Amino acid sequence: MSSHRYCVIMCGGVGSRFWPYSREDCPKQFIDFLGTGRSLLQMSYDRILPIVPKENIVVVTNARYAGLIREQLPDLEPGNILLEPARRNTAPCIAWAAYHIHALDPEASMIVTPSDHLITGESVFEDCVRRGFGFVESRDALLTLGITPTRPDTGYGYIQIGGPVEPGILKVKTFTEKPGLELAKVFLESGEFFWNAGIFLWKASAIIDALRKHDSDLTALFDTGLADFGTPSEADFIARNFESCPANSIDYAVMEKADNVYVECADFAWSDLGTWSSLYDNSPKTEGTNVTRDARVLAYEAEGNMVAVPSGKLVVIDGLSDYIVADTGDVLLICPKSQEQRIRQMVTDVRLKYGDDAL
Amino acid sequence: MSSHRYCVIMCGGVGSRFWPYSREDCPKQFIDFLGTGRSLLQMSYDRILPIVPKENIVVVTNARYAGLIREQLPDLEPGNILLEPARRNTAPCIAWAAYHIHALDPEASMIVTPSDHLITGESVFEDCVRRGFGFVESRDALLTLGITPTRPDTGYGYIQIGGPVEPGILKVKTFTEKPGLELAKVFLESGEFFWNAGIFLWKASAIIDALRKHDSDLTALFDTGLADFGTPSEADFIARNFESCPANSIDYAVMEKADNVYVECADFAWSDLGTWSSLYDNSPKTEGTNVTRDARVLAYEAEGNMVAVPSGKLVVIDGLSDYIVADTGDVLLICPKSQEQRIRQMVTDVRLKYGDDAL
Repeated sequence: MSSHRYCVIMCGGVGSRFWPYSREDCPKQFIDFLGTGRSLLQMSYDRILPIVPKENIVVVTNARYAGLIREQLPDLEPGNILLEPARRNTAPCIAWAAYHIHALDPEASMIVTPSDHLITGESVFEDCVRRGFGFVESRDALLTLGITPTRPDTGYGYIQIGGPVEPGILKVKTFTEKPGLELAKVFLESGEFFWNAGIFLWKASAIIDALRKHDSDLTALFDTGLADFGTPSEADFIARNFESCPANSIDYAVMEKADNVYVECADFAWSDLGTWSSLYDNSPKTEGTNVTRDARVLAYEAEGNMVAVPSGKLVVIDGLSDYIVADTGDVLLICPKSQEQRIRQMVTDVRLKYGDDAL
Repeated sequence: MSSHRYCVIMCGGVGSRFWPYSREDCPKQFIDFLGTGRSLLQMSYDRILPIVPKENIVVVTNARYAGLIREQLPDLEPGNILLEPARRNTAPCIAWAAYHIHALDPEASMIVTPSDHLITGESVFEDCVRRGFGFVESRDALLTLGITPTRPDTGYGYIQIGGPVEPGILKVKTFTEKPGLELAKVFLESGEFFWNAGIFLWKASAIIDALRKHDSDLTALFDTGLADFGTPSEADFIARNFESCPANSIDYAVMEKADNVYVECADFAWSDLGTWSSLYDNSPKTEGTNVTRDARVLAYEAEGNMVAVPSGKLVVIDGLSDYIVADTGDVLLICPKSQEQRIRQMVTDVRLKYGDDAL
């Protein structure tokens, strides 16, 4: 029995806040970040496989990562890898995937997921996604997964909920940007807000309709390729047109504007692993509350550090607390966790001083 | 014209205060510590070569370093490498070398030098050593080189001078242990004290006589091998007897007791490179007063750090001042410079926790 359920794994990010572990030639999603033996991309793929047959899993990534995808997901047919010739954020990425899948299967529904998030509690995830598929298959709805917040995190976007529609699914009232700490505390206490996990479910036809309504320039471009999607000429069409798409996120392009947007309350543990501190928060602690992964660490008056070094490396730290110590072999970063927002600037500074090769 | 001048390079130390750069299987003296392309041992050898012919240069080291010596000093004849079967400090080391050289050449004079010190100003060094050889060749004197102190260093031993004997050479009044800071300041201001560089000159016969007088147990043992030294059976004699020598320094055994001890004022720049801080003090500084050697370093609010990493490694440090950051590839040490006396304990702790293989 063939399935009309598809999955789009977005895999084109650079992950610069995780430098030096995340590098332009091997970003975060391709790294075995948690020491499990599987990269974040592979874990995302493994997680969806019980729900969506592998023939229906599509990975969208930048063309330069084609080799990494083939290496890490050898079971995936080459036709299931969509290679973007340029980085244009999530709206053009999702639009392409939707046109591609809709051309193959006009009845398709799809889940769109990042490749570099952490999710634990796979069976809860599966139940949640199956319920979500059921919901969007019966109506023209755009469904996003909302995570019950556990702290006033200022690094996430929030979703304000409206009225319930069916068990676990509610209307979305508003999407909000990353709030300040005081506002985040209000959000948390109100019980009306969820974290926006950036995981979406919808019918391919529904998201294309929504894009036509709210981002008609983008669909006007893609509509000129309707004869190409799902055929051997699709790659040529993309090569000629994709770069002219304006960079835009699906949140701005559609989700914040459409009125058929719903949120499903997700109970699995989730982190976007956006920063070293979030990795610290999501990792088991060893002596002195340090996160040491599989390093051998001796800590003297050293607490709260996020230590990431090549497997098996011996680290002796003395008189250092609440720092990031990230060593990739060719790059060593030592930086207070409180200064991690500087890392993007550091990457820029390194490029200016030592050139692209240093990155 | 054959020379009666010999050199003994002592090369058996472990250099544990420089861990993780200095390792038991490759101590400090075998490392290109200053990034010059030559190890400290090679620099010591190069420095003496204009004064002593290579046939007369003897390296004494622990047996486990035989391969390193052959690799780093390929011009040295195997017969010029004395391999100690055990570590017994400098007195047994120097006694063996003196008996060995005296057996080959009863008229021999010799300079004894560590292999892991830093000396700059080679021509000043050469003049100084030639003057010293001239002095000890004309009398039964034990001559030590004294460095004019430039700061109240509490890490060095001091020599108090007595009356002048000839230009630049004075009688030694006393040797003193490492002083406290207040005493070191008094020493510095008095003008009566020199740093003890641990570089000695004497006739082979003179040091053997002095050992017979002040450490007769040691010479009683070595005298049983008088028929072996300088012959093919010397190695067997050492293998049978060396381990039974008590560990003792030449300072305790002879220099502090003998009354024919003199000091030559040495004007070359010298450091025993005993600690990371002394390497910091003796190294050129880059931005933010950090010592970065040949690393590529970006420093944000980071000053006074001693950074030693594999050649060409990129280091980004933020919010770190007056630390040692020493990365050997398999070991990373981050430690305040002020805590460097802890390093020996750290090495012990590493051995206890992770075993010898981790060192």
